[in-house]
Amino acid sequence: MLKALREQVLEANLDLVKGGLVLYTFGNVSGIDRDQGLVAIKPSGVPYDRMKADDIVLTDLDGKKVYGDMRPSSDLATHLLLYKSFSGIGGVVHSHSEYATIWAQAARAIPALGTTHADYFHGPVPVTRVLTDAEIEGDYVLNTGVVIVEAIGDKDPMSMPAALVAGHGPFCWGRDAADAVHNAVVLESVARMAVHTVALRPETRGISQSLLDQHYFRKHGAKATYGQASSDKAL
Amino acid sequence: MLKALREQVLEANLDLVKGGLVLYTFGNVSGIDRDQGLVAIKPSGVPYDRMKADDIVLTDLDGKKVYGDMRPSSDLATHLLLYKSFSGIGGVVHSHSEYATIWAQAARAIPALGTTHADYFHGPVPVTRVLTDAEIEGDYVLNTGVVIVEAIGDKDPMSMPAALVAGHGPFCWGRDAADAVHNAVVLESVARMAVHTVALRPETRGISQSLLDQHYFRKHGAKATYGQASSDKAL
Amino acid sequence: MLKALREQVLEANLDLVKGGLVLYTFGNVSGIDRDQGLVAIKPSGVPYDRMKADDIVLTDLDGKKVYGDMRPSSDLATHLLLYKSFSGIGGVVHSHSEYATIWAQAARAIPALGTTHADYFHGPVPVTRVLTDAEIEGDYVLNTGVVIVEAIGDKDPMSMPAALVAGHGPFCWGRDAADAVHNAVVLESVARMAVHTVALRPETRGISQSLLDQHYFRKHGAKATYGQASSDKAL
Amino acid sequence: MLKALREQVLEANLDLVKGGLVLYTFGNVSGIDRDQGLVAIKPSGVPYDRMKADDIVLTDLDGKKVYGDMRPSSDLATHLLLYKSFSGIGGVVHSHSEYATIWAQAARAIPALGTTHADYFHGPVPVTRVLTDAEIEGDYVLNTGVVIVEAIGDKDPMSMPAALVAGHGPFCWGRDAADAVHNAVVLESVARMAVHTVALRPETRGISQSLLDQHYFRKHGAKATYGQASSDKAL
Repeated sequence: MLKALREQVLEANLDLVKGGLVLYTFGNVSGIDRDQGLVAIKPSGVPYDRMKADDIVLTDLDGKKVYGDMRPSSDLATHLLLYKSFSGIGGVVHSHSEYATIWAQAARAIPALGTTHADYFHGPVPVTRVLTDAEIEGDYVLNTGVVIVEAIGDKDPMSMPAALVAGHGPFCWGRDAADAVHNAVVLESVARMAVHTVALRPETRGISQSLLDQHYFRKHGAKATYGQASSDKAL
Repeated sequence: MLKALREQVLEANLDLVKGGLVLYTFGNVSGIDRDQGLVAIKPSGVPYDRMKADDIVLTDLDGKKVYGDMRPSSDLATHLLLYKSFSGIGGVVHSHSEYATIWAQAARAIPALGTTHADYFHGPVPVTRVLTDAEIEGDYVLNTGVVIVEAIGDKDPMSMPAALVAGHGPFCWGRDAADAVHNAVVLESVARMAVHTVALRPETRGISQSLLDQHYFRKHGAKATYGQASSDKAL
Repeated sequence: MLKALREQVLEANLDLVKGGLVLYTFGNVSGIDRDQGLVAIKPSGVPYDRMKADDIVLTDLDGKKVYGDMRPSSDLATHLLLYKSFSGIGGVVHSHSEYATIWAQAARAIPALGTTHADYFHGPVPVTRVLTDAEIEGDYVLNTGVVIVEAIGDKDPMSMPAALVAGHGPFCWGRDAADAVHNAVVLESVARMAVHTVALRPETRGISQSLLDQHYFRKHGAKATYGQASSDKAL
Repeated sequence: MLKALREQVLEANLDLVKGGLVLYTFGNVSGIDRDQGLVAIKPSGVPYDRMKADDIVLTDLDGKKVYGDMRPSSDLATHLLLYKSFSGIGGVVHSHSEYATIWAQAARAIPALGTTHADYFHGPVPVTRVLTDAEIEGDYVLNTGVVIVEAIGDKDPMSMPAALVAGHGPFCWGRDAADAVHNAVVLESVARMAVHTVALRPETRGISQSLLDQHYFRKHGAKATYGQASSDKAL
């Protein structure tokens, strides 16, 4: 049942580890089949080195399990809300990668300080508001998704494929599970550079709108010129 | 004699190295058999790459050696006091892992700045008071244990499985030797993120009590929902 | 066609990865054959682990492709302007290596704070001015070269083989592609040390002119004494 | 000729690389045979991965080459002065390891902020004064040794086996070449922790004299208790 999707999601989870973003079982990746309305997601608390495609759980968009023996990631409800809210995305990643988490813990958006940032994120990477006690004590995992959707607001989720949950860590997304992981890996590098850039120059406001646009649209959209194909980002 | 325990302790010592927490022979792990009242501990100053299960020393809770040819770790007396004071623990780790040591050197508790912290440590990781000259010149290794026990105070050692010895470094513990190492590895990541979070936002007070509780109890205790089993943390 | 050059350029691109300066496909290296006026450069957006010498594109100094099926790096126009402006150089590297990029994002030149710097860069590594909106919206890639050439000014490009593009990242060059990569790797270490040196001692002005000269000329020029040959830097 | 010494020195040079202290050919290790008054030292600018025991150069204490085809390290004169001034040492290391170099570039001694430091260095690791222009333009390499000897002053070089040359980097020494490298590796970790400790707590004065003594003498001297032998540091 959706074997190819489960294999892609397994692969993307392993790429998250290879990208250096994971300690133990922290972090999870999912992917969606939009036609069938089914989400494939990492099982909860299973070590990556023993994970198989058959351990990847399938659920519908209401979180009802339709395949697999394992419990899905405890962050499932956040993933599902992102898929429901952002219709263009095909994969979601949550990690506790250290530098993105540092910005989340500091409850600061990551300003667009350079072209590496601009190549992937069309503006500052937003941080959510702090959840209220009622939201935490209520449907916490769902409410984590609610504040992410709020933080993205009227931005296009495909041109801002990440948000930081205050006091928690980053969620990233993309065209599919692999693309979401790619964005998460770049976010970590961007976050690390931003920590030290701000230390070197606390008053920095970041790059101009024109430089942000120039780099973002060089890699994305109809006029993209980067890579070997003309209409999409790096192959 | 307690071969399985000695093998677990050997394995846990090697995992400490794999976790990147060890330079040369710095650091030591022990485990206890509560029924027999015997502790298995790393020998002093032996390189990890040559260590065998037979080099792991067994002592009773008074530090009398009952198995092995080597001298036990020079930190033995601290380990023993922790086992005597914290009846629920089964393993103890001491390391000089760099970022936990940085907080210890700064004599600052690590505030609970995010959910990674909250998943493992139910509040700020405490730092001991500075030892007096008399305590240092007296039974120094034992007194290191005394100030750790003081720093934990009336906290539950299983929900606060670490303390920083001021000017020295971290001690961690857990259900068994492997769990203690797991906590030490997570502490290092939490400590590293906390150093930079505080730099980015010096006035931060950390996450709310409700978020701390939400994450801690998601992984620990009767209502835990993380992982594949229902009553304990990540398998 | 210029197979040896294409192989050197491939090798230099792979060395950039080995040096830890590259995430995904970020970064590109080129080399020039001065006699034929042809430049060999990495193709755009091709993963390093699949790149072959045949994927390396050859263009003339006006950017007209004379060999290869792939699109050249999207930074080609910057490379070409550097070759035309700095007649002594034989290789060019652009990367987003993190610490050099941090200085670029902070729009600060890297001061000469120690002898590691002085061994390679005969003075502060300059940072360009910020590009105007007109320059960004015009021939952006070419204009990136223009501000680099401006930043080097009347310095000898062989004794200052790097510049930081404000808000972007480093460009480095050298006798050939391999030498340019060597300089880029050293720049990254120098930049990392400089970030923390400035944190430890914000008022530092760096080393004296005499120490800068002593180290620079120990490795470069007719009186060089480093290495096994007498007239050039480390073999 | 002194084959065992040359092999030890080769091994120690390779250990410097394994310890992560070396970029390209930066850094050099030597060892001495006190009976014959001969020093074995790394050749200048030779890549580590091709270095053989036969490339290790032997010189007398005046720097006259007595064995080998290669030029000795360009830092030879510094090494020789240290051997002549510190009669108890058997090995010398110079590196540009990043964090020790950061303190050297900041021209600050590394304060004794914790027991990791105290286990190896019996007090703050001193930094030299800045060399005068005359000293730099004169016999620079020798004068580098002169200011190190000045910085050690009346301290015992065996209990303070390192000094930072202002604006340059660390020199370390020990009983033999391997021990000198061991000290250099520990110094780098100590220096890295000190950078961040000072950031977290700028006003820190470091550990007490009694804690410094307790740890230092636990590993060194007649009353040492660390390791498996009673009279020396970690085996």
